[in-house]
Amino acid sequence: MEKIKAAIVGYGNIGHYVLDAVLEAPDMEVAGIVRRSVKEIPAELKPYKVVTDIAELGKVDVAILCTPTREVKHYAEKYLTMGINTVDSFDIHGDIPALRRALGEVAVSHGTVAIISAGWDPGSDSIVRTLMEAAAPKGLTYTNFGPGMSMGHSVCVRSKVGVKDALSMTIPLGTGIHRRMVYVELEPGASLEEVTAAVKADPYFASDETHVMAVDSVDAVRDMGHGVHMTRKGVSGRTHSQRFEFSMAINNPALTAQILVGAARAAMRQRPGCYTMIEIPVIDLLPGDREQLVAHLV
Amino acid sequence: MEKIKAAIVGYGNIGHYVLDAVLEAPDMEVAGIVRRSVKEIPAELKPYKVVTDIAELGKVDVAILCTPTREVKHYAEKYLTMGINTVDSFDIHGDIPALRRALGEVAVSHGTVAIISAGWDPGSDSIVRTLMEAAAPKGLTYTNFGPGMSMGHSVCVRSKVGVKDALSMTIPLGTGIHRRMVYVELEPGASLEEVTAAVKADPYFASDETHVMAVDSVDAVRDMGHGVHMTRKGVSGRTHSQRFEFSMAINNPALTAQILVGAARAAMRQRPGCYTMIEIPVIDLLPGDREQLVAHLV
Repeated sequence: MEKIKAAIVGYGNIGHYVLDAVLEAPDMEVAGIVRRSVKEIPAELKPYKVVTDIAELGKVDVAILCTPTREVKHYAEKYLTMGINTVDSFDIHGDIPALRRALGEVAVSHGTVAIISAGWDPGSDSIVRTLMEAAAPKGLTYTNFGPGMSMGHSVCVRSKVGVKDALSMTIPLGTGIHRRMVYVELEPGASLEEVTAAVKADPYFASDETHVMAVDSVDAVRDMGHGVHMTRKGVSGRTHSQRFEFSMAINNPALTAQILVGAARAAMRQRPGCYTMIEIPVIDLLPGDREQLVAHLV
Repeated sequence: MEKIKAAIVGYGNIGHYVLDAVLEAPDMEVAGIVRRSVKEIPAELKPYKVVTDIAELGKVDVAILCTPTREVKHYAEKYLTMGINTVDSFDIHGDIPALRRALGEVAVSHGTVAIISAGWDPGSDSIVRTLMEAAAPKGLTYTNFGPGMSMGHSVCVRSKVGVKDALSMTIPLGTGIHRRMVYVELEPGASLEEVTAAVKADPYFASDETHVMAVDSVDAVRDMGHGVHMTRKGVSGRTHSQRFEFSMAINNPALTAQILVGAARAAMRQRPGCYTMIEIPVIDLLPGDREQLVAHLV
């Protein structure tokens, strides 16, 4: 059976873990890595084609976009037009419907498939949220994140005057309420008090309980662990107090990468169009014989 | 928008809860109830057509099979041939692939859809198992059931000489190991010792830790609560120790019924064929506008 030729677009943190997951996938091979520059190539990429333009890679079945989230639309539209399926972990929740519409049009008119927001939240958590709502249509779901680093919040703190490096940890307090624990490495002469005031006033932090602390080295306190705890209490039919919980404790980029690779496989199995994770059958995320998967997992 | 006309086939425990769930579904209506006899009609069924042959109901979009599991194939084949979609909660895990093949052929040749094994296990749990395996392809998943009544084990105990009524509770001990707590109401003069020996020797119980106790009334200790706790520890890409958990505490027939009703809706949205729950997109289980669901749940 011919293997799925996957290109990795962007080789930052996520791209690195996507390479691992593609190498472990029995039905995939690395078509190559697309980077902004090919001047400095990390040692582990020596066995692969590293290019600046995906067209140099020859046949590519699917491009796994590991770019910053704001560049996803640009690359996805370009590749879908070239006849290449795309997957991404676009994570700006409010902008997902618009991205889905835009890529859907391009994909349908070029006979390609895009699967968007295929990380863990949005992504695998979205599937669990949907399933919980199907199991008890009336009720409340809470998604509690952490403990783990929030990339968006960390970037926000780093943008403040006097901050050399920063880490913002998300701490779950239940019912979807989160505490922000912010660790900052200050520039010489900067005031922790002023940085704290600036952080707390930022819309990113204004509505959450926020604590800001100075540390000697942000690098020394940073780790990739993250987690989620989702709960739903609701009504099945007319029966109340049905309770559901999902939780995980994971390496964040490793899980994102694994979901992306599953979605890349699933992209090969959908009709042309743009899909979120809740719109594709979960079986399509897995390699192997369909009947054997049914026997093993159902 | 025209509502989905759902027939309820069989009006035992599950059928009763399916009626609740259909009545609560904004996009469905009760086409009628199919029973073996229409001689004694429960008061709550007075507003509906109650028939012995589904053909008497006029147009039916989907038949929700609430019959004993061993009768599912017979009814499903009959209705699929008549142009009616079917859903069921067939729960003999080992026989699912064969049922899927058999109903698949009938469904495809009659342009209809069957969704099988659409309860909670097999059913919604199957989706979680598949998702966990997609998130960490290497590793072990354990499905721990209970505490809750096992219908199959209870029926087995009731078949023993000297037993008037029985309840077998499944108690989770972790890593997929279960204890059986069996409560028996004895016939006059029956020996608890002999009943215990007969139960423990039965293949249903032989490999599990089993305790048999006599009670005055099985009815007084029976409740519909059940639950599951699933865990997976595995590898995403090349990153070990990724941990996932799913648990629920639910009224058993109410959840089964709600999943069946979601599957009945989903059956209207698939191409002809037979599907298990892991082969349909979870969004199809829910009513309402697709883009709004994406905005709300992804």
